[in-house]
Amino acid sequence: MRSLRSTIAYDGTHFAGWQRQPGQRTVQRAFEETLQKITGEATCVTASGRTDAGVHALGQVVGFNTHCMYEPDVLVKALNAQLPEDIVVFDVATAPDDFDPIRDAVRKRYRYVLHDGRIPNIFDRQFSWHIWQELDVAAMQHAAKLLEGKHDFASFETGGSSRLTSVRTVYEVLVERQGCEYTDRVVIEVEADGFLYNMVRNIVGTLVQVGRGRRPIEWVSEVLTALDRQAAGQVAPAQGLFLMWVKYDC
Amino acid sequence: MRSLRSTIAYDGTHFAGWQRQPGQRTVQRAFEETLQKITGEATCVTASGRTDAGVHALGQVVGFNTHCMYEPDVLVKALNAQLPEDIVVFDVATAPDDFDPIRDAVRKRYRYVLHDGRIPNIFDRQFSWHIWQELDVAAMQHAAKLLEGKHDFASFETGGSSRLTSVRTVYEVLVERQGCEYTDRVVIEVEADGFLYNMVRNIVGTLVQVGRGRRPIEWVSEVLTALDRQAAGQVAPAQGLFLMWVKYDC
Repeated sequence: MRSLRSTIAYDGTHFAGWQRQPGQRTVQRAFEETLQKITGEATCVTASGRTDAGVHALGQVVGFNTHCMYEPDVLVKALNAQLPEDIVVFDVATAPDDFDPIRDAVRKRYRYVLHDGRIPNIFDRQFSWHIWQELDVAAMQHAAKLLEGKHDFASFETGGSSRLTSVRTVYEVLVERQGCEYTDRVVIEVEADGFLYNMVRNIVGTLVQVGRGRRPIEWVSEVLTALDRQAAGQVAPAQGLFLMWVKYDC
Repeated sequence: MRSLRSTIAYDGTHFAGWQRQPGQRTVQRAFEETLQKITGEATCVTASGRTDAGVHALGQVVGFNTHCMYEPDVLVKALNAQLPEDIVVFDVATAPDDFDPIRDAVRKRYRYVLHDGRIPNIFDRQFSWHIWQELDVAAMQHAAKLLEGKHDFASFETGGSSRLTSVRTVYEVLVERQGCEYTDRVVIEVEADGFLYNMVRNIVGTLVQVGRGRRPIEWVSEVLTALDRQAAGQVAPAQGLFLMWVKYDC
């Protein structure tokens, strides 16, 4: 039995998220079924984290054990030839025997894409959230800084959680306006040692309240210290969110 | 009655092209129906040229006559609020009374987007053509130069045509490799005083034969002088093609 890890991307638009669910098209199910076609054995694939319905990944990391002795490069080719057109594999590599993509992850980065103003970007509509007014990016950048560091992010966690603690270290909250074809886009990237459920989408919804001028910059500090989900802005829709990469020590 | 012109973009993926056809979802039909909802009158809308099923537009120009006296800016807002999510309007302006978007066009530019190599760009798959090997962009650039100038482009026209002449002046054929998220893309842009049916897609199919190393650079000159569609490469698929802009003297 070999332990393998793989970096993959997927367009989440037509998936009910990562995790297997009866009767649903999920990334885990599509990936496991394709692996089984290639290796001839049923294989359980674990990801660094479950992404929700509609969320995309540019660098999700998955792990699995297999008897299949194909060279990693051959496996990449075989997978890309047989996977559905909304999943792609970048690499396959040998992992430590006890590799666990969830437990062993030490750092992750997410991206959220917004378009703003009167002209929606129709070509990016499955991969962004459109805000019908111009966002004040400078204000959002100041507000973003207030979230960096080690804090209890309970206000940015949706739903009851079984996690022991909602303290996380956020290394960076980047807010940047970028030119693109015929409208700008505003990109928010969040890097942390771990994320609570809906944490990035709740941060984005909160920063957008500031960018719209509905709340002052300092309000973000109030949200943080409230330790109460009701204090934060609306959760941003799934289709603007991308898991960028996951870092491991091993 | 006012004569108006408008610059619009559309994602051609789910349209059976520009032109009205019974029982089909077309851009012309969607645009005319939305105009009628706003103005209360049936309106015939003409475009600078018909785009085929699956072809996109970043700057299509359309013209129509209306009794509606809304200010152009109000009309832009009303259209964008009511158009389907795969059409967007950038501007509306007064046009000369006899404005004809087809006859009066003096120059157009198209873009074709390719991705190449072993890793398909799944996020751009509705807006590009994937070539499963690395393209020789330098060779394609040399070949592209052979097409610039005033030539009879009969070899690059699909089907029988009613046009008087297949001589066109091509001002530029640009071939450029551009970095993007996780794979490069190769962009081909063609600017001319007019285009024959499928001309850009036939040029792209021909240049790709050179980029794949299946044909030498000089072969493109042979194709051009053959004046025979059978001489050229395969027609490139519709979903990589964008009408960029249309220029008018008026």
